[in-house]
Amino acid sequence: MGMNENVAKPLDRLLDLLADDMAAVSTLLDRRMVSAHAPRIPEVTAHIIGAGGKRLRPVLTVAAARLFGYEGTHHQLLAATVEFIHTATLLHDDVVDESKQRRNRPTANLLWDNKSSVLVGDYLFSRSFQLMVETGSMRVMEILANASATIAEGEVLQLTAAQDLKTDEAIYLQVVRGKTAALFSAATEVGAVIAGAPEDHIRAMFAYGDALGIAFQIVDDLLDYGGVSETIGKNTGDDFRERKLTLPVIKAIAKASPEERAFWVRTIEKGDQREGDLEEALRIMQAHGALEAARLDALSWSAKARAALAPLPPSELRDMLADLADFVTARVA
Amino acid sequence: MGMNENVAKPLDRLLDLLADDMAAVSTLLDRRMVSAHAPRIPEVTAHIIGAGGKRLRPVLTVAAARLFGYEGTHHQLLAATVEFIHTATLLHDDVVDESKQRRNRPTANLLWDNKSSVLVGDYLFSRSFQLMVETGSMRVMEILANASATIAEGEVLQLTAAQDLKTDEAIYLQVVRGKTAALFSAATEVGAVIAGAPEDHIRAMFAYGDALGIAFQIVDDLLDYGGVSETIGKNTGDDFRERKLTLPVIKAIAKASPEERAFWVRTIEKGDQREGDLEEALRIMQAHGALEAARLDALSWSAKARAALAPLPPSELRDMLADLADFVTARVA
Repeated sequence: MGMNENVAKPLDRLLDLLADDMAAVSTLLDRRMVSAHAPRIPEVTAHIIGAGGKRLRPVLTVAAARLFGYEGTHHQLLAATVEFIHTATLLHDDVVDESKQRRNRPTANLLWDNKSSVLVGDYLFSRSFQLMVETGSMRVMEILANASATIAEGEVLQLTAAQDLKTDEAIYLQVVRGKTAALFSAATEVGAVIAGAPEDHIRAMFAYGDALGIAFQIVDDLLDYGGVSETIGKNTGDDFRERKLTLPVIKAIAKASPEERAFWVRTIEKGDQREGDLEEALRIMQAHGALEAARLDALSWSAKARAALAPLPPSELRDMLADLADFVTARVA
Repeated sequence: MGMNENVAKPLDRLLDLLADDMAAVSTLLDRRMVSAHAPRIPEVTAHIIGAGGKRLRPVLTVAAARLFGYEGTHHQLLAATVEFIHTATLLHDDVVDESKQRRNRPTANLLWDNKSSVLVGDYLFSRSFQLMVETGSMRVMEILANASATIAEGEVLQLTAAQDLKTDEAIYLQVVRGKTAALFSAATEVGAVIAGAPEDHIRAMFAYGDALGIAFQIVDDLLDYGGVSETIGKNTGDDFRERKLTLPVIKAIAKASPEERAFWVRTIEKGDQREGDLEEALRIMQAHGALEAARLDALSWSAKARAALAPLPPSELRDMLADLADFVTARVA
């Protein structure tokens, strides 16, 4: 779930426009990660939060609230909530995936240990829970409780679907809604809810976050195979090596010849990978237009995100969010 | 945190008296552990929830609510909440401690893998969050959010305090309040809150749960060294091997001669353990009366738990809870 300059442009404009709010969110994150009793907690948290993440999710919450003229400070609490939930899932993901690097830095599980990543993740999740309680809104609690369950369910589903060639596009979409889109849509929805937006606008903000998150994840999965270019970059192939069934692979498997199927069974299902297999996987995906088809899916979700905003009254913030939807897929457009 | 027949007696009486409520809690647990999309979740959950735990924490919530004449059903939701939080922490604890057995059965991390334990734990924590939201009580949310943070903080503190001979009784108490007592006191407090008990009675129920949990954990730590008897049972010495600084060891270290101190540095701090070291540790602890002193501390916390109930109006349930406080320490009385 990286981020490059193309996405950063409209995101930077959003971060600029909402700089005061985002500074308050940063202060909240710094203050609330502190633990009087366990200094390991802020050490681990600062390592991952300070690692140059773009704060895409919290800015969505702040933008959604401001879009409806919200003048209070509860949207800042909720933005911090969303960022802590995101950080907690990153810590647990890195344990589950046995990752050694994130954002070009060693992961917390490598620098400290798996134990610290599990427990500090739990701590941040609890802290996020305390932050949202401070808003006093039961509706916000309900949205974030449901999102948390969807995230955890998506992660488990991804675990059990991995290496299983029966994983189809419907299952993939469910995994993506869980691991990525659920937090995007909760981020935009709670912003609208805390601002007291009308019900149809709340639904619109949910739909925007949902489609944006799906587009974002498809692009991420596509970039793991080098995008639609045929060059293999230094970060290419992690998903292939981890035998993850992402959209391009699923599309290629659906069209596989018996010989190609045997290739996928050997490399993904059985995990018997040899020199040159990544190049062969890319060749097969290109031959079936799988990368191009995944790209079109991403663009379609990005268009859905933009369209979701249509019922909202015109404003500078609305236009920035619409641009953000396009720029999320600009990396493969 | 095991449970033997002595504790079971008054607990069984409580479970009997509250059988209808507890049956409803069981149904809730069964229904809410289900995931339409990820069958791994109920498999792992049923393995650990079905493993013969005594449901001590949920019965505390149900009892606390009934004690104040509560006639609704929200206490059942909260009892299930508390049990899911407990189950989630057990799953994560077993990953952190690299445990292979719990309640005489292989742990989930051994039967499946660490990944499943981490993610299913996250899922159960989210489900607990959904359950409590259904009560619609912000005060309950706040209590459970704070308890969750205290639990996570206690676990991290335990991790960083492990193997550190500077760990004193104050730090031990903080760890125990986190890893055990915070959920006990939240369990009793939310029961009283949901029943609309008066503030001083809510405080009494909190104090009861807090003291009960501390007594319970000290006894557990004592039994890990075979209690105050001098026999070494088959489950003796896990904490010693894991180099955990529990109360008997802390008390022995405080009184250590230079030679004994060298022993603790070698076995606990450096982890260089040899044949006969556990026996030597027991001998040193006996020589300083450390096991006996820890036993007296447990009895004192148990007496505090009983005393906390004094301001409440007399009732059969109140007496049962008072008896429960004695029986928690009966294993070492």
